[in-house]
Order: sequence, then structure tokens, then C-alpha cells
Amino acid sequence: MGFPELATMTTVEATTAVAAAPLVVLPVGAQEQHGPGMAMCTDTVRAEGVASRVVEGLAGRAVLAPALPYGVSPHHVAFAGTMSLTAATFQTMINELIDSLYDAGWRKILIITGHGGNAPALSVVAQDQLQLHPELWLAWSPITALAKPEIAQLDVTSVHGHSGQAETAQMQFLAPELVRDAELQPGTTEVSQLTGRARLSRSTLGPKLAVGFDSYHQGVLGDPRQVTAEDGKLIIDAVVDKITRFAQEMIMGD
Amino acid sequence: MGFPELATMTTVEATTAVAAAPLVVLPVGAQEQHGPGMAMCTDTVRAEGVASRVVEGLAGRAVLAPALPYGVSPHHVAFAGTMSLTAATFQTMINELIDSLYDAGWRKILIITGHGGNAPALSVVAQDQLQLHPELWLAWSPITALAKPEIAQLDVTSVHGHSGQAETAQMQFLAPELVRDAELQPGTTEVSQLTGRARLSRSTLGPKLAVGFDSYHQGVLGDPRQVTAEDGKLIIDAVVDKITRFAQEMIMGD
Amino acid sequence: MGFPELATMTTVEATTAVAAAPLVVLPVGAQEQHGPGMAMCTDTVRAEGVASRVVEGLAGRAVLAPALPYGVSPHHVAFAGTMSLTAATFQTMINELIDSLYDAGWRKILIITGHGGNAPALSVVAQDQLQLHPELWLAWSPITALAKPEIAQLDVTSVHGHSGQAETAQMQFLAPELVRDAELQPGTTEVSQLTGRARLSRSTLGPKLAVGFDSYHQGVLGDPRQVTAEDGKLIIDAVVDKITRFAQEMIMGD
Amino acid sequence: MGFPELATMTTVEATTAVAAAPLVVLPVGAQEQHGPGMAMCTDTVRAEGVASRVVEGLAGRAVLAPALPYGVSPHHVAFAGTMSLTAATFQTMINELIDSLYDAGWRKILIITGHGGNAPALSVVAQDQLQLHPELWLAWSPITALAKPEIAQLDVTSVHGHSGQAETAQMQFLAPELVRDAELQPGTTEVSQLTGRARLSRSTLGPKLAVGFDSYHQGVLGDPRQVTAEDGKLIIDAVVDKITRFAQEMIMGD
Amino acid sequence: MGFPELATMTTVEATTAVAAAPLVVLPVGAQEQHGPGMAMCTDTVRAEGVASRVVEGLAGRAVLAPALPYGVSPHHVAFAGTMSLTAATFQTMINELIDSLYDAGWRKILIITGHGGNAPALSVVAQDQLQLHPELWLAWSPITALAKPEIAQLDVTSVHGHSGQAETAQMQFLAPELVRDAELQPGTTEVSQLTGRARLSRSTLGPKLAVGFDSYHQGVLGDPRQVTAEDGKLIIDAVVDKITRFAQEMIMGD
Amino acid sequence: MGFPELATMTTVEATTAVAAAPLVVLPVGAQEQHGPGMAMCTDTVRAEGVASRVVEGLAGRAVLAPALPYGVSPHHVAFAGTMSLTAATFQTMINELIDSLYDAGWRKILIITGHGGNAPALSVVAQDQLQLHPELWLAWSPITALAKPEIAQLDVTSVHGHSGQAETAQMQFLAPELVRDAELQPGTTEVSQLTGRARLSRSTLGPKLAVGFDSYHQGVLGDPRQVTAEDGKLIIDAVVDKITRFAQEMIMGD
Repeated sequence: MGFPELATMTTVEATTAVAAAPLVVLPVGAQEQHGPGMAMCTDTVRAEGVASRVVEGLAGRAVLAPALPYGVSPHHVAFAGTMSLTAATFQTMINELIDSLYDAGWRKILIITGHGGNAPALSVVAQDQLQLHPELWLAWSPITALAKPEIAQLDVTSVHGHSGQAETAQMQFLAPELVRDAELQPGTTEVSQLTGRARLSRSTLGPKLAVGFDSYHQGVLGDPRQVTAEDGKLIIDAVVDKITRFAQEMIMGD
Repeated sequence: MGFPELATMTTVEATTAVAAAPLVVLPVGAQEQHGPGMAMCTDTVRAEGVASRVVEGLAGRAVLAPALPYGVSPHHVAFAGTMSLTAATFQTMINELIDSLYDAGWRKILIITGHGGNAPALSVVAQDQLQLHPELWLAWSPITALAKPEIAQLDVTSVHGHSGQAETAQMQFLAPELVRDAELQPGTTEVSQLTGRARLSRSTLGPKLAVGFDSYHQGVLGDPRQVTAEDGKLIIDAVVDKITRFAQEMIMGD
Repeated sequence: MGFPELATMTTVEATTAVAAAPLVVLPVGAQEQHGPGMAMCTDTVRAEGVASRVVEGLAGRAVLAPALPYGVSPHHVAFAGTMSLTAATFQTMINELIDSLYDAGWRKILIITGHGGNAPALSVVAQDQLQLHPELWLAWSPITALAKPEIAQLDVTSVHGHSGQAETAQMQFLAPELVRDAELQPGTTEVSQLTGRARLSRSTLGPKLAVGFDSYHQGVLGDPRQVTAEDGKLIIDAVVDKITRFAQEMIMGD
Repeated sequence: MGFPELATMTTVEATTAVAAAPLVVLPVGAQEQHGPGMAMCTDTVRAEGVASRVVEGLAGRAVLAPALPYGVSPHHVAFAGTMSLTAATFQTMINELIDSLYDAGWRKILIITGHGGNAPALSVVAQDQLQLHPELWLAWSPITALAKPEIAQLDVTSVHGHSGQAETAQMQFLAPELVRDAELQPGTTEVSQLTGRARLSRSTLGPKLAVGFDSYHQGVLGDPRQVTAEDGKLIIDAVVDKITRFAQEMIMGD
Repeated sequence: MGFPELATMTTVEATTAVAAAPLVVLPVGAQEQHGPGMAMCTDTVRAEGVASRVVEGLAGRAVLAPALPYGVSPHHVAFAGTMSLTAATFQTMINELIDSLYDAGWRKILIITGHGGNAPALSVVAQDQLQLHPELWLAWSPITALAKPEIAQLDVTSVHGHSGQAETAQMQFLAPELVRDAELQPGTTEVSQLTGRARLSRSTLGPKLAVGFDSYHQGVLGDPRQVTAEDGKLIIDAVVDKITRFAQEMIMGD
Repeated sequence: MGFPELATMTTVEATTAVAAAPLVVLPVGAQEQHGPGMAMCTDTVRAEGVASRVVEGLAGRAVLAPALPYGVSPHHVAFAGTMSLTAATFQTMINELIDSLYDAGWRKILIITGHGGNAPALSVVAQDQLQLHPELWLAWSPITALAKPEIAQLDVTSVHGHSGQAETAQMQFLAPELVRDAELQPGTTEVSQLTGRARLSRSTLGPKLAVGFDSYHQGVLGDPRQVTAEDGKLIIDAVVDKITRFAQEMIMGD
């Protein structure tokens, strides 16, 4: 690979990297259901895909840490093959990995999550680190949420999200071999298809109400069938561009 | 008081309430700095103010639980008088309070937070409850974020937020005795006043970067001086209306 | 109110208070059943009532922290409306709140509990703090136990305690609107009314045996019907006097 | 030994004991300083001494569990040789040991502590067990506190307690070889010898203030020099009698 | 890929796999220094290499879970690029991943660790699972320890181990691109090169004494220079054969 | 007793011992079934027996800490009288006891376990201490595993282990009064007596598979009937000799 990775480095090289590459980028994903047509590693693949492109674009000023393939997925445990950590464990784990990087001398860390379910725990980690290591710059980023303009250009259904148009497009671009085109099926595409708690969870009034994804048709939000690798490239390029610009400011800041 | 409160009820009355009032509303606040001109209980006051109005509007179909006056405020600990819980402790505490309500028979709980720093922990609680009590409807809501249209009508500075226009307006309406008008001062009002990490934390690119609020002028975002009780009433009314409508759907749902 | 409260102070005022008011008084209560005639916030009301009088008597040399309305009430969870924290969570929470006060510069803290069930956890916190912050003066105090002479003057039943004469008298004085006079009923008033485990739990031999309060008639120990606000004033005045004198020694000590 | 001990039993014998001996007695002690003249295992020796006599007196209706030689001693860690557990760890440990006894079929457990510092944690365990195993009769007992009348007959100094008259007398009776008579020295015997925080910690006003025992002369409260084995026998006999009578009621109760 | 992987499966396929493939194989590695000549992902690569061959050999009767790239490496944290979890966190994490698999219906799990430092935590997980899920067959296996006869055939130095002959040979076979041949250097090869604590840690008397790997030359035990991919193939084939035979018995057992 | 024990020392003597006796030896055992013929304290007795002999042989250069009579025994909980701690609790407890010794000035600690089930947790403690107290020499040792040559001389059955020949011989030597000769019975002595999971757990292929000891005949591995006190003396002498030599090197090292 053409960019620095902690996994494939030796420790001697890492010693050099602490000075040369002040930023560590850590991708975190999930092992969780993505409907009948997409692989369960989807979130990890996207986190790694974005993170490696960001690191590549930083031209030696950042290093990539190994992707964590497990995340916080309690809303998907009704689906076989989902493997979920509690948020508390995830938080502790990330805090400890940060400790190691900190002790080695790094002071800037950027976590990229391919899975929205990791976001609360990452926000908590950010709060914890404010007290544990106030001088550490700890940033974290989602992926899909950074591409709202690009996704708006796709002809998305009124309900879309998990395993829907935007996520499937990314996979068609990053790892088409992990998409079973013939198995792709629309999930819940309109609020009117929902009732009760699931319907209320899609309310735009403001309060948040969590539901298990077995409340949605096939565990999918949106229709993954029509999007293309080109769509995915637009999304990934936009996200990589934004995160890279952010990372450059992190690297230059003091 | 004109609405049912668990604090002032007897247990005999609570036994009746389990059947009559299927929803419990729990306000959570914070003890944290709010600049030189506003009391440190601001978030608790606003949480209670909104929650009691919501419960009142539900006409006996909901009960109010005692407001929790401490929250997750690691970003404010540099300011004297802030008292902060870790997110992990806050999560455990809320999960245990939910257990008690659940054991008594309630299946619908709505937490209203006056403090944004509690949001990650509340999201984690929602994830935990999906596994602990899948049939429990656990919703939570912020306050200010539900009043974007109303706040847009105020002539807000480009940077505004903690202890700024929207929050001060709410306090001018709910508890003007807790606002020291003469001490109100503008905090950071434009990104150009910031440098380094604090500036990057305001970036709109997408990644999130936490900073201590001692990075901002006076620990304040925005200019709290011009807003009025009328402004605050507009915000509170809008928020109460949205949450009440959401709560009504919770109560009716099954 | 005429005394300094952290809740209603600004952080600027708190900075001043660290020097002027070396003692922080923290009231802790409970949300728990108090029989058919008294509100569930009874312990919180009494803790706040005593704590605010103590702070008032210290004439600017102490500040009041926000009252915690939840405590350790596993012996009352069979009664609807009780909301209980585990002792472990309560301990952690109090330790963290102490951390915040300590970091702000306070070295003397006095916790006043209106609920006996919080006592073991507070004793543990005192042990923890001996190792965490050896130089911190951490004191804690019950309420009713400090008024034994005054309670002896009431014509109490041989069994009395939770929601009985002493506690009801305090509420008749502090918050008569939270006492439903017409609903007050005697609970268990003599050991002879008890059998088995509950009877043994009242033994005076020495060992302690905990029982759920559903073992007692109405969850009440004693007869709450005859006591008056004057009785309550005697108790509260005596308790406030003792704690205030203790607090004065804390403030002057070094 | 003339009484049933889980330590020296086989598991086959324990299976029989579950039915024949419905009560388990668990002694807990401490490894902590006891002044210049007494062994650091003093609390464990006394706990075992009392517990084994209680079990013996119950004539086959109770079994003795192995004594735990470590307790919660943060107030003694300034003295070499003290080994202390946190209260949280002690609580968890006792809860787990109870689980094992419960799973084997026992429903009545009596813990006897030779160390006052274990009392808060044991009270917490009692609270925890009310929720974990409501039908378990979990009692715990101190030792010296049960012999107030007998200790009053000794000519005790106005301050007496840890390693003082009552405790030394018990050791002169139970294990005189662990008392170095020539090294016994008076510790703090009057409040007037104390200043500041230590003096306040002896206040009788009511609030509790913990101090490290290095605040007291030699870490000792009272004068251990004049008491005899006969004094100790009086104390131990009285304590054993009270606990045995309590234990008999536990055994007979249902 | 020619064998079933949970990562690349859809959840629909996983539902089928629960019945068809009763065994889940979970590789766990480490991100830790491997001397100047080998990549820090070495243990993860070897765990995945062995696990995927085992799953392949089981012909559809087992599935592969995503490899965990972080392990328990406190003895390597002095080397930049090592990222270590505490054993407690690792234990909790594995227990939670097992929970997910168990809830989906799997009753047989085999964990393969490429890192010896994970062994104590995995042994603890095995103990935990005996109580949590007694009917679960949870096995775990090291790699190199299963190839003693094959390693004996290599001309190993008297001290060999971490990053030495056996491990380097495996990497020359599995991932030669991750070995920097020119950078390979001998580490500690004889006990006589060591002094003090490090020397004692190599004692064969029996007691175990842990040391940081910075006590060894280059953090390496043995001489990694002469071994070949053929040596590595002998080791890997032997290990895969043993684990596969064990796994077959797991699959057939009931 | 003819050797220094922390339990029977005074704190004054312990202060001297920190300098004179740089090593602390801590025995840890278990309360767990040992078949129909041996006492449940067997592991504690053997740990104390070995540890006291080691300390005695070190002639004043080491001190003995109180033996812990409870260990990690989840594989024995199906047998009445077993009392088991989780590994996590055991780890925390040992880490805290080490903290006390460390704070008193000791830098060398040797833990001797009579129970194999404590080994994983002790290995984890050793890992924890590498990060908590890198300069602490923390060693731990099993007992029986150090006497392989001596055990080979006994005419052992092909399966032997828990409560079998080696362990019974040790008890015949150390505490014959705790062996019920008439009740000793052979347990599982050959793999052919086992089926399914229990049989696979005895596999020599390499992977480890834990089973509850209720899978073995009488919870015993081997035939405890023929061994003698002389056999036990051979084993104990060999183990004590090895550990003592190791301990001497610890004491002299720096």
C-alpha cells in the first residue's frame, strides 16, 4: 500500500512516524446485518475505505491504525451474524487504544466510524478525553452524514438510511464483490409503511426514540437497487475531501 | 402544583398513576458554568420548565419524575462551581432509575435534557435499553435544538450556543431572577475570534472535535444581552408543543 | 434565598466563594415510599431543609450544592414510585461530584442525608476519600438520629422510624403541603405485630438483618398521626444547631 | 475441631450440611495495624474466635465458612503491613461468595466482622442482596459493639477504641501469644490530646468525619495495658451469647 | 474467498449458517512491536492465516468471524506503535461477542490467538463462560505452542520466542511482504546475555516473572534471519492440522 | 512460628521488615470440592504449606502475607461447599493488596497458588502490574506443576490431576487429618471413561476446552488411594526447593 499503516509498519518505523506523522487515523466499523443483499462488514469496509484515502491524501503526515471490525449494534442483534459490543465496553476499549498512542507521543487522533451506532460512544470518549488528556486533539467523524448534498442528488426514497441508497452506493464503489445485486430488495421506504413505535421513531418533531431494526422491512431503510458505483464515488470523494481538509488543519494546529 | 409529580405523590397515588399515566417524564440538567451572567442551574431549570409544561399539557396521562441536577460537563470543569459526572456514571444512574420505573410497571419513559453534554450518554442509555428492556419505549429529547425556526428569528450572532441568545432568552422567560442582566457579556460571537483547536472545533466540515469551554471567551457562545422573556417564551412554547405532541403519540402507541 | 447556593450562583461568584466560603454542604435525599400519607420526596425535602438552614447559619462561610433527589432505596422498591440507585452507583456519583469541588479548590465538604439508606454508601465514600484525597475534610451527617432527646419527648410508639412520628413531624414543619393528614395511618407500632424475619430485624441483640419495607404495615414504622409542626420544629432546630456547630469547627480547622 | 467447618469438610459432607445446617457463618477480618503491641491479624482472630464459638453453640445447625483475612482499611494504610481492599472490591467479593452459598441451597447467612471498617461495605452488601436475592436472610454483626455493658465495667479511658482496652482484652483471652505485653503503650486517651480534624472526628455532635489513624498517637485509641484475659472472656462470652441467640432465631425462622 | 466468513456474508446467509455450520472460529491478534524487521500486525496475520485455513478445511461446517486486531500487550508498550488493551477490557469484549453468537444460536466457538499475551484473558473468558453459558463449548488455541516438534527441527537458539525463528518463519510463509529481510536482527539468543530481572524471567525453576520486552535486545527473542517460508509452512500446516482435528470433534460432539 | 509473618507481626515490626525482608510471599488457595475424601480447603493448605516453608528457608529475608482462602473456581460450583470468585474480582483484589505492599515500600512480591484455577487471573495481574508498577518484581508460582519429575515416579493413572495422586500425597504429608482415607475413591483415571465434551477437554492436540468438574467421576482426576505422606514429602520438598531458589534470586536482584 502506498501510505503509512501502523499495522504493516515495524516499531522502528513507528518511532520515526511519531515525529513525521503527527496524526493517527483510526477506522471503526461494525459486524452487523445490512439486509439481504450486502455483507455484514459493510461499515468496516467503508470506514477503512475512507480512512485509507484520507491518510493517502495527507502524504506522509498521518498514519492509519488497524480498523476495529466490531461496534455498538444493539439495534441489530435480532439478525443472525450481528456481533455487538455494549457502548460501555466500546468506550473503554477506545480510551485504552488512545492511551497507547498518547504514551507513544501522538497528540492528534481522528477516528472515522462507518457505523452510526458508534457515534454516542465516540462522543462519550471525546468527553472522557477532555478530562484524561486535555491537550489531546481527539476528533471523530461519521461518513454518510458528510455527504448530504451528494446524496440529495440521488433520487432517494423519503425514508432512507441503513443499507439504503447512500450506503449501497458506497459499497458498489468500494467493494462491489460484497454486494449481492440479485438479492438487493427495498426495505422501508416511506413512513406510511410503519406503525406504532417504529413510525414514531421516524418522527421529525425532535425527541429520539430508538427501535430495533427488526421493526423495519428486511432491516433496511430505503431502496438499494438502483444506485451505482459512480454514485458511490461521488459520496466517497466528497467525504474524503472534507475529512482530509479537517485533518490538515489538525496537523497544522497547535 | 397542577400536574402529577412523583416527588410529591404518595406511593399509593403512584400505584394508581401506573395505570392512569402510562408515561414518565424525567428532566435532567447540569450544574455548570453559564458565563458571568447566568446561574449554574440554568440547564436544570430549563429541563424542569419544559418537562413540567409537557406533563401539564398531557392532562393526567403522564407523571413527572424528580429533576436530576447533575450532568456530564467535562468541558466546563475549568470553571469553579461546575460539578460533573462521567458519562459512564451518568449512564449507569439513568439505567438504574429506569429499572425502578420499569419494575413498577411503566413501559414509556421520556427524558428531557437541558444540557447538550448529556446527549451522548442518553443515546448510550437508549442503546442499552434496547437490549435490557426491548419492549420499553425510551425516548429522550434536547430542548434548544427543537426551536431552530424560532431561534432563527432572533438576530443571533454567527457563533451562538452555550449561554448565548437562545439559552438566555429561555431563562429570561422561565426564571429571570437567575439572570444577572448587568453581568451579561458577549462571549465568542464569530469564528474569527478563535484560533487553533477552538476554531477547528467550530468547523462545518463534519468531523467533531471537542474543546474545553475555557477556549471560548467567558465560556460563552454568542451575545446574551438583547434577548427578552418574550423571545424565551416563543422558544419554550415551540419546544413544549413539539415534545407534547411526541409524548401524546407515545402514550397512545402500543 | 438569603444564603449562597451553587445552583443559583454564577461561576464568577463561585470563584469568589472558593475563598470566602471554604465549606460546601451537599444535601442528598431519596425518591421513595413514605406510606399512604406522605410525599415520596420527603427525604430530599428534609435534607434540603436542614442543609439550607445550616448554610444560612454559617453566614457566608459555606455554600449549598444542589440536592440530589435520588438515593439508595432497595428496601422500598416493592412500592410504586420508589426510584433507587445501587449503592455502588451512588458511591461513584458522590465521589465524582467531590472531585469537581476538589478541583475547584474546596477542601471541606459536608453531606447531609435525609435518607438512612444512603448512610452505608456515604461511609464508603468517606473511606474512598481517605485514599483519594487524604487532605480533604469529608463529613456526612444523618438528620433524625441527631435528635434523639427531642424525639424521646414525643410520645412515640415502641416501634417507630421510617414515616413515623419523627419524620412526619419534620414534614409538618418543613412542608405541611406534602403531608396528607387524612391519609396518615399507623404502620407497625409494636414488635409483637411482626413475625419471622421482620421481627428478627427489629431485634436489639446486635446483628443486623435487612428486610424489605413491604414487611411492615403500609411500609411505615410508628404512628404519624398525632405529631405537629411544633414537634417538627423542635427536631429540626436541634439538628440544625448540632450540624451548624460541627460545620463551624470544620470551617475553622486546618 | 468440634464443629462443622466448610473448609475442613468434603463436598459430600457439605451436601448433607445444606439440609442439616441451614445457616452459614462467615467471619471477616482485616490485615491492619494494631499499634506497637498487637498483631496485625487481630481482627481476623477475633472474628474467627467469635464465629467458631457461635457455630459450636449451634450444635450442628450451622457451618463455618473460611475467614477472610483482608478487609477495608484505608484509614490504616499509613502504617506498614496494613493491606487494604477498597470497599467496592470487598462488596463484590462478598456478594460473589454469597452467590456460591445460595446456589448450593443455603438461604441464611451470618457475617461476623472483627473490623469496624468493613461495616459500611457489609451494609451495602445487605442492600444489594435485598434486590439480588430477596428471600435470602443475610445478617451481619460487629463484635465489640455488642459488649457495651461489659466494656463499661472496665475502667476505660474517655477515648477508647481501636487497639484499646476492649480489643486488647479480647486478644489477651483469645490469643495472648499475639499480644506483646512489653510493647503495649497508651494511644490517644483523651480528646484534649487531639487537635484539628482528629479532634473534630471524635465530636459527639452527630456528623461523621473520617481521619487516618496516623492522626492518633501510635494509631491506638485508649490504653491497652491493664486489661486481662478475664476481661476479654467477659466480652467474648457476652458477644457470643447475643449472636448465638440471634442465630438461633435465624435458623428457626421461615 | 472459498470459505464462509461472517464478515462477507449477509445476515440471510448467516441465518442459514447457524444450522449448517455449528462452529464459529474467531481469530484474535495484537498490534504490537515485532522487532526491527517484522510488521506490528504479525499476530493478527498469523491468527487469520491459521483460522481461515481451519475454516476452509472444515468444508462448510464452520464460519470465520472478523479478526480482532488488538490484544493485551502491556509488555510491549515501551515500543512505539504498540496499541494495548487491558486484560479486563479484552475479557469483557470477548464475552460480549460470544453473547451475540450465542443469542444467534451458535453453541460452539473456537478462538485462535496469534498472541500469547491474550492467553490469560482467554482462559478467564473460558472460566466466565462456564458460569454464564454452561452448555457453550468454548475452546481457544494458541498457534506456535502447537508446533513444538516442527520448531525443534529448526536450528533454534537456546532462547527463542517473540519475533524469533518460529514466528518469523510463519510470516515468511504467510505474508513475506510484511517481513523486512534486510532489517531482521538477532535479539536475545542466550540467557547469558541477560541480567537481573530479565534473566530470572527466563528461569526454568517454575515461578513466572513478567518483564517488559524492552528488557530484551530489540524486543526480540531468538534469531529471525535464517528461517524460510518452507519452515513456516511446516509449522502452519502442523498447527492447522491439529486445530482442524480438534474442531471436527467439537462439531461432531454433543 | 519460626518465620516472619505479616499476620502475627505488629506494624512496628513490619516497618523494620520492609528493609530487612525485601520479599513478600502471598499464598492463595480456594474453597472448592476435592472429591469425597479430601477437605475443601486443600488448595489453601498446600499454598500455605509451601509458602511458609519457602519463607522459613529464606531466613528472615522474606515475610509471609495472610493466605487468601477463596479463589476462582467456576468449574467446581456444581459441588456444594465450593465458594468461587469471578476472575475479574480476584484480579482486582490481588491488585489492591499489591498496592498496599507497594505503598509500604516493598518492591518484590511472590504469589504461590495452590489452585490452578487462579493461574489465569494471576497472569492477568502480572500484566496489569507491568503497567501499574513497572519496577515491581511480581512473580507467581503454581505448586504441583513444579514437581513433574517427582510425580512421574509415582505410579500415576493415565489421567490424573485435581484431587488425584499428586494432590492427595501432598495432603497426606501436610495435613493428614484433612484426608478421609476411607472415603477416597478413584475418579476418572482414563480418557476412555469420558465422552463428548469432557473427553475432548483432555485432548492433547493443543486447543483448550473447559468443562465443569461434574463431568468427571466424583469431580476427581486420578486415583488418590495409594499415595503416602512420603510421596507428598518428595513433592513438597522439590517444589519448596525450586521456589526458594527462585525467591533467593528475586531478593538479590536489582
